Amino acid sequence: MKKYFMWAMVVCGLASSFSAAAQFAKPEDAIKYRKAAFTVTGAHFGRLGQMAQGKTPFDAKVASENAEVAASMAKLPWAAFTEGSDVGDTKAKPEIWKQNAKFKELAEKFQLDSAKLVAAAKTGKEDVFKTAFTTVQGSCKSCHDDFRNK
Amino acid sequence: MKKYFMWAMVVCGLASSFSAAAQFAKPEDAIKYRKAAFTVTGAHFGRLGQMAQGKTPFDAKVASENAEVAASMAKLPWAAFTEGSDVGDTKAKPEIWKQNAKFKELAEKFQLDSAKLVAAAKTGKEDVFKTAFTTVQGSCKSCHDDFRNK
Repeated sequence: MKKYFMWAMVVCGLASSFSAAAQFAKPEDAIKYRKAAFTVTGAHFGRLGQMAQGKTPFDAKVASENAEVAASMAKLPWAAFTEGSDVGDTKAKPEIWKQNAKFKELAEKFQLDSAKLVAAAKTGKEDVFKTAFTTVQGSCKSCHDDFRNK
Repeated sequence: MKKYFMWAMVVCGLASSFSAAAQFAKPEDAIKYRKAAFTVTGAHFGRLGQMAQGKTPFDAKVASENAEVAASMAKLPWAAFTEGSDVGDTKAKPEIWKQNAKFKELAEKFQLDSAKLVAAAKTGKEDVFKTAFTTVQGSCKSCHDDFRNK
């Protein structure tokens, strides 16, 4: 029951992140916004990665806090991949707009995996956390491979 | 009762935002992080400002969504005003570190005012929303006046 409730919340979260109308006056505003959102997201995933790799000791409280911020941030950048924001100071590949369904699918998987990481961190079990982190990492990588220039 | 519970949650949120250990390898990482956090925050406050000024029609749902993101974002930048990050590509004034208690006080007020804006947007009453927005705007301004270079 609790599990279904959690997934219902995740799904609502995804729906709202996609329905929230993006309002960017200029394509460069959208680019700046999404890069900023990824910078913040990356900082928190970086800390989680340090723990997952054993470079810093696993601390369930710190892991949960960082995972919660990362999971909230994970909802934000997608609305900023607006029409016309494929050119400019961006590493976004044109495939984002050409294969948009696939891009959205990976974006949704990333958000789900991030939400699962919060739950994993909260279990307080290091191995559960590490496994969930590896999944998110794979999620980042598969999207970067296909949709981000080096 | 409900009101006290809400404030308890806000206060817990503040506490956790300040206790969460900032982990930045280099001062420039901290600067990049806080600027990114403000960029995202500013985008959402910008949309709210458009509504508060009547440039876009007031929509309680859109206002609530944007206020929620803004209020979450409002917790993030403070941990990134780390020692040594007063120099570099930043508009941060040295007063942030010299008058840190005052800076923290304004940062907390901004977070409280942002949380109140969420509640105001959710009432669905345009005038309540506008008043709450004006308060947050004042909160931004007073901190920028004292602690941010032009």
